[in-house]
Amino acid sequence: MEGEFLEFVRHRGSLPGNASHPVGIGDDAAVLQWRGGEDLVVCSDLISDEVDFILAEVDPVRIGRKSVAINLSDLAAMACQPKAAILTFLLPRQTGIELDTLELAQQLYLGAERIANEFDCPIVGGDTNTWNGKLAISVTLLGSCTTGRPLRRDAAQVGDVICVSGPLGGSLLGHHFDFSPRVQEALWLNEHYELHAGMDISDGLALDLSRICRASQVGAELFAEQIPVSNAAHELSKTSGKSPLDHSLGDGEDFELLLTLPPAELARFQALQTTGGVPSEMELHPLGNIVAGDTLTLIESNGERRSLDSIGYLH
Amino acid sequence: MEGEFLEFVRHRGSLPGNASHPVGIGDDAAVLQWRGGEDLVVCSDLISDEVDFILAEVDPVRIGRKSVAINLSDLAAMACQPKAAILTFLLPRQTGIELDTLELAQQLYLGAERIANEFDCPIVGGDTNTWNGKLAISVTLLGSCTTGRPLRRDAAQVGDVICVSGPLGGSLLGHHFDFSPRVQEALWLNEHYELHAGMDISDGLALDLSRICRASQVGAELFAEQIPVSNAAHELSKTSGKSPLDHSLGDGEDFELLLTLPPAELARFQALQTTGGVPSEMELHPLGNIVAGDTLTLIESNGERRSLDSIGYLH
Repeated sequence: MEGEFLEFVRHRGSLPGNASHPVGIGDDAAVLQWRGGEDLVVCSDLISDEVDFILAEVDPVRIGRKSVAINLSDLAAMACQPKAAILTFLLPRQTGIELDTLELAQQLYLGAERIANEFDCPIVGGDTNTWNGKLAISVTLLGSCTTGRPLRRDAAQVGDVICVSGPLGGSLLGHHFDFSPRVQEALWLNEHYELHAGMDISDGLALDLSRICRASQVGAELFAEQIPVSNAAHELSKTSGKSPLDHSLGDGEDFELLLTLPPAELARFQALQTTGGVPSEMELHPLGNIVAGDTLTLIESNGERRSLDSIGYLH
Repeated sequence: MEGEFLEFVRHRGSLPGNASHPVGIGDDAAVLQWRGGEDLVVCSDLISDEVDFILAEVDPVRIGRKSVAINLSDLAAMACQPKAAILTFLLPRQTGIELDTLELAQQLYLGAERIANEFDCPIVGGDTNTWNGKLAISVTLLGSCTTGRPLRRDAAQVGDVICVSGPLGGSLLGHHFDFSPRVQEALWLNEHYELHAGMDISDGLALDLSRICRASQVGAELFAEQIPVSNAAHELSKTSGKSPLDHSLGDGEDFELLLTLPPAELARFQALQTTGGVPSEMELHPLGNIVAGDTLTLIESNGERRSLDSIGYLH
């Protein structure tokens, strides 16, 4: 239709199914077709006091950083290049900390701007508001699919290897503020390899893998011994009453890439890696396979098979 | 630079000057150059409980509508065509009203979706979050400058006529929820006439005109008798202790267009209007002139001149 150059490649549903899911879309970001043919990708995520951080306990610069970083991670999950950021601050009139409202805004902005610039994603606009409530920050990022091939959740295939881009678990000890969004890794992998499905791990390996499986109508098996467990997961397990493996399967906010790809593609990556042909920061840890069916199975080191659902990871 | 197809046409400042100003930009929206040459326009605005509405007192459908409508008004202020909306809800776990959190989200969404669709601006994504705080809604709109000529605040010229698109004041009585964003009016006027500067009136005629004047480095004179006073301003003045004129000069959230244009252009509009050549809903009320200097003057019906600053409208 003339004049109608905005076409929605991906726009599912119209009512928020429940309060923890994105509105209106089923993936990490919405993809629009803008004039000129290049995909315009939009994602939006909000963080708030006492949910995603505790203002009284953490440097606001780190909070500002996190508000942008989680959105960069959403663009990484689509293998898209960040292009511009829009920030909206909802600021407490009484901050409850040493900084006043304006100083708080400046510190938040500083953290947001630093990481935005680091990823060539300048802050181009936004809004600041004050109220008697607590702090919340909403960030919208615009990005582009440079290869024209955004990474999706619903394209995992039976036989794929499941990989993650780094060790998992224990994010609560600090990683959830200081993680590096895997933007460059996702762009590089998506350019050089045939990736089938992908997302970023925000709600835990088990739960997020179940989302890929449901969207792709497949099952998965994970090998417990192959799951890369972070030092923080080991540290946290000393006091949490959970095992390091529990933390790496269940903890949220790892913000690592969760990818599925053909075994031959992984082999090609690994061969190149041994000859130094892969950027040094690039990690791919294979930890299982996509299988037929709809069950997610954990295979213990003794060969015992348990469904992730039955051991409580999918709730 | 190759690969760098995002160029910022307008990006001013880098720190939020104060808590009531947009972050990073000096106009109603940010304008980006996207591949293909067409301008991509982004605006973002947030509304929150007890600041922009009182959840306990108003139908959530109207709140959802307002969250999108104020952003549509920002795009109208740039004479841009809305294209897509991104919604972020921050929802109270305890709503304090008859609806539970999910029902509240659905009602908000309903109001947002209706007006978004009415303006061909589908909701393409977003985020919903729950917390123990009060309700806030952040909306980001994407739009395009169809004429390639966005309307700016900083281009008013000495000799311009100042016009508004409708009666002003008393918005508190309901208009701030139910107003019609002047998108079609702005697009039509920008296409057919040489508009110099424009914005939408969100903080009151006097204050918003002072922003155009400051951005354009000019002054203004307003004729009190020519200011179109709304019925609501008259109604409110019965109990407020202020005059209807006070309300039309000082009240916020009119969301009418405030435009400056050459007198000859206004004359052309008025001539066409008498012959029925202007869409019937299109109003342009001339109420003053752009003058040299930096003073905003109100000229009373008896010819008395008073600076708007001295009578307290610019604070």
